[in-house]
Amino acid sequence: MPESTVGKANIGVVGLAVMGSNLARNLASREGNTVAVYNRTFARTETLTGEHPEAGFVASEAIDDFVASLQKPRTAIIMVQAGAGTDAVIDELVERFEPGDIIVDGGNANFHDTIAREKRISPTGIHFVGAGISGGEEGALKGPSIMPGGSEESYKTLGPILASIAAIAEGEPCVTHIGTDGAGHFVKMIHNGIEYADMQLIAEAYDLLRTVGGLEPAAIADVFSEWNKGYLESYLIEITAEVLRQVDAKTGKPFVDIVLDEAGSKGTGVWTVQNALDLGIPVGGIAEAVFARAVSSKPTQRAAVQSVVKSRPEIQKVDASFADDVSKALYASKVVAYAQGFDAIIAGAEKYGWNINKDKIAKIWRGGCIIRAQFLNRIADAYDENPDIATLLEAPYFADAVAEGEAAWRRVVATAALSGVPVPGFGSALSYYDSLASKRLPAALVQGQRDFFGAHTYKRVDEDGVFHTLWSGDRSEIQTTGSSH
Amino acid sequence: MPESTVGKANIGVVGLAVMGSNLARNLASREGNTVAVYNRTFARTETLTGEHPEAGFVASEAIDDFVASLQKPRTAIIMVQAGAGTDAVIDELVERFEPGDIIVDGGNANFHDTIAREKRISPTGIHFVGAGISGGEEGALKGPSIMPGGSEESYKTLGPILASIAAIAEGEPCVTHIGTDGAGHFVKMIHNGIEYADMQLIAEAYDLLRTVGGLEPAAIADVFSEWNKGYLESYLIEITAEVLRQVDAKTGKPFVDIVLDEAGSKGTGVWTVQNALDLGIPVGGIAEAVFARAVSSKPTQRAAVQSVVKSRPEIQKVDASFADDVSKALYASKVVAYAQGFDAIIAGAEKYGWNINKDKIAKIWRGGCIIRAQFLNRIADAYDENPDIATLLEAPYFADAVAEGEAAWRRVVATAALSGVPVPGFGSALSYYDSLASKRLPAALVQGQRDFFGAHTYKRVDEDGVFHTLWSGDRSEIQTTGSSH
Repeated sequence: MPESTVGKANIGVVGLAVMGSNLARNLASREGNTVAVYNRTFARTETLTGEHPEAGFVASEAIDDFVASLQKPRTAIIMVQAGAGTDAVIDELVERFEPGDIIVDGGNANFHDTIAREKRISPTGIHFVGAGISGGEEGALKGPSIMPGGSEESYKTLGPILASIAAIAEGEPCVTHIGTDGAGHFVKMIHNGIEYADMQLIAEAYDLLRTVGGLEPAAIADVFSEWNKGYLESYLIEITAEVLRQVDAKTGKPFVDIVLDEAGSKGTGVWTVQNALDLGIPVGGIAEAVFARAVSSKPTQRAAVQSVVKSRPEIQKVDASFADDVSKALYASKVVAYAQGFDAIIAGAEKYGWNINKDKIAKIWRGGCIIRAQFLNRIADAYDENPDIATLLEAPYFADAVAEGEAAWRRVVATAALSGVPVPGFGSALSYYDSLASKRLPAALVQGQRDFFGAHTYKRVDEDGVFHTLWSGDRSEIQTTGSSH
Repeated sequence: MPESTVGKANIGVVGLAVMGSNLARNLASREGNTVAVYNRTFARTETLTGEHPEAGFVASEAIDDFVASLQKPRTAIIMVQAGAGTDAVIDELVERFEPGDIIVDGGNANFHDTIAREKRISPTGIHFVGAGISGGEEGALKGPSIMPGGSEESYKTLGPILASIAAIAEGEPCVTHIGTDGAGHFVKMIHNGIEYADMQLIAEAYDLLRTVGGLEPAAIADVFSEWNKGYLESYLIEITAEVLRQVDAKTGKPFVDIVLDEAGSKGTGVWTVQNALDLGIPVGGIAEAVFARAVSSKPTQRAAVQSVVKSRPEIQKVDASFADDVSKALYASKVVAYAQGFDAIIAGAEKYGWNINKDKIAKIWRGGCIIRAQFLNRIADAYDENPDIATLLEAPYFADAVAEGEAAWRRVVATAALSGVPVPGFGSALSYYDSLASKRLPAALVQGQRDFFGAHTYKRVDEDGVFHTLWSGDRSEIQTTGSSH
């Protein structure tokens, strides 16, 4: 390699598929960055450098040259498909890097893998950073929301570089040090889980406006555009209007009507629910969204049930205020989904020892990522005002918002149930809210059943201790562990 | 050891806590069995043999003597706490057993562990069998439902022994060879998941009868007793009546009112949902039940929300037919939960290569286990009639049952939503049914959103192929993979 490129780049990117190329171009376009690029197949590197001479990339065909082209501490972002490929690249860099250098995995790794990798690499003195990057291809190019984990020390070098390419929301770059080891990928996973819930809730709102409200897609697009000017303002609401306004060129029909109604998924929604279950956090909004996609993708089951269904319920009559009711139901359900998502983040941070900052997480989601929305300012405010609230639902703003929309929310869920419109998201969110708001839950009966068949014991409302009733005996109560009296 | 005990027992039990002791006593009480017993702490063995001389146990203080006391092929059932303890006992037996001998893990192992253990032990020629045993302490003693996995060959020896102690339902023992390696523990896990759903649905029915119906626990006990004579007949309905009829001796109040309303769990519900997610099977009924217990056990969140809630909705007025409506909603929701559970079994069998027999699984759950019910005959009939149905909901009996209860189910979910009674189970089940029954789902919109922000592509309803719309370009459609035309 030409001697002149040695130590020339302050940041390197490994893996130049679309996400990696776009991130490299984004980095190169920012003042102060010189970007080294490397790809296993050099042809791809040449394509990128050929198409983007303005970027001034420092390109290397050999990994040794790529490593040599990096200033110390060397900092490289790996943008390859999550899995075995990531480990291969990590190993190549670990062999060549020195203590104090920084390896960033910018892919969609499972945070458990990130924790394991950090543990494996840490003894070498090299910093390993798992960074969640949200915003897709366009975000990578123009400004993503970035969720880096890893050591605080690594963030001193990495922070300014990531801040240079992140989306800007209200003057602040959408990046913050989330916490050590897997914290970044964990928070990115929850972001994606919330995204599932948000999309499902929007889909239910659309279905209700269409099936019950009787509106055509173009009219619903107008409703969504209107909603996008108010409290529901968000990227997902905005693009929903775009999608609904789209007309299929081949048939002249609304685009949404020619799309096969089977939704796919890539796994982060599943991970979110599985991990929330491990953490004991109820995330019904996300789980129902994941399940809704799964049901949609079972054409054989759907056809089988439809073949035996003799009649569908009559659609309930609604008046002009229905769209407003739906917007309130959507908003209240969305508040629940975000409350559950943040609960999962808080529980994850506690379990894995991350010193997270909830309001900063809300703030870096305001730009660049799929769930970006004004709404996140309200979440940031809530946690900023009182970081110790037990749930977002107790924060004054959200408590008021839910109270204001509550009656509409109930009407919408009831109307959907009577009309045969599936609302797993709206319904689960409402039941979650009602579970929290009810003075007594039938969980007492469940504990009674568990004590009956499995001697699982119960606590009493009126005294401390753990009790068991001798159900197969004389049905008297015994105390199984000492009370604190 | 006395020479006379060598090879005397046809079955051995290792681990003599309550479950192991009861299972050993059950085995000993059946014609033809001589039972060897072993426990790490010999005192426990002596207690058992001292208290139950009638059992004729062959007791050994040393594991070598225990092994020697078994006839060949040696067959031993391990009944110790799942986890590391199980592995220690397995290793001791593997050291001493010979090819053709059989080690049964009768604990609540995770089926993934069972698969790994079978793989590890298989090269020794010793059969390793993971067996789910349901029915709690009483079932172990009087007749459990048993779900053994492992090799078919091992079942030739083991089958008759297990059949001798299993519960009997309509003349048939509640045991069948489920499939190889982890199949038994997998099916036991799903059984427990269904149990969660069943209990949650009953809890919701109780809550509705009480909160909306205005009935006191004793009156609701009568309703449940009545239900237990009809299509809802089941062990869980029966014991619910018992629990609701119970009066607290200390206060004179209904027992259910003095029990703290925070439901615990032991993990198999969580496993069920996590594995169903891996398998792509929607199990909303089970997930919502797991989440409902989790919400109930968050007193801080509950208190926080209750402190900001200013008013609760007015309870809807209902008439005398409400209890009948609730029974129909309960039944329809229960059908959904079982349909989802069997879907998970079918998907698990496919993924892990088990040749399962769905109607036999339904039959062995008719007795001994917690979810035992007449209802399981209907499931057995459905799969017996046509093993290839896509879902239980298409079987004529269930299709008719749901159709008959559908209007009531909708009224109940709507009433709950309007009255502020949480019905995560009823609501999720109804939405699942409506998702399957709807001709079009808003999943089409979700696919449109995914294509918009992530170029995830979509299929069309009117031609083969995979498509993408150039959303940031001229919004024309391109085909990304070849169609099959």
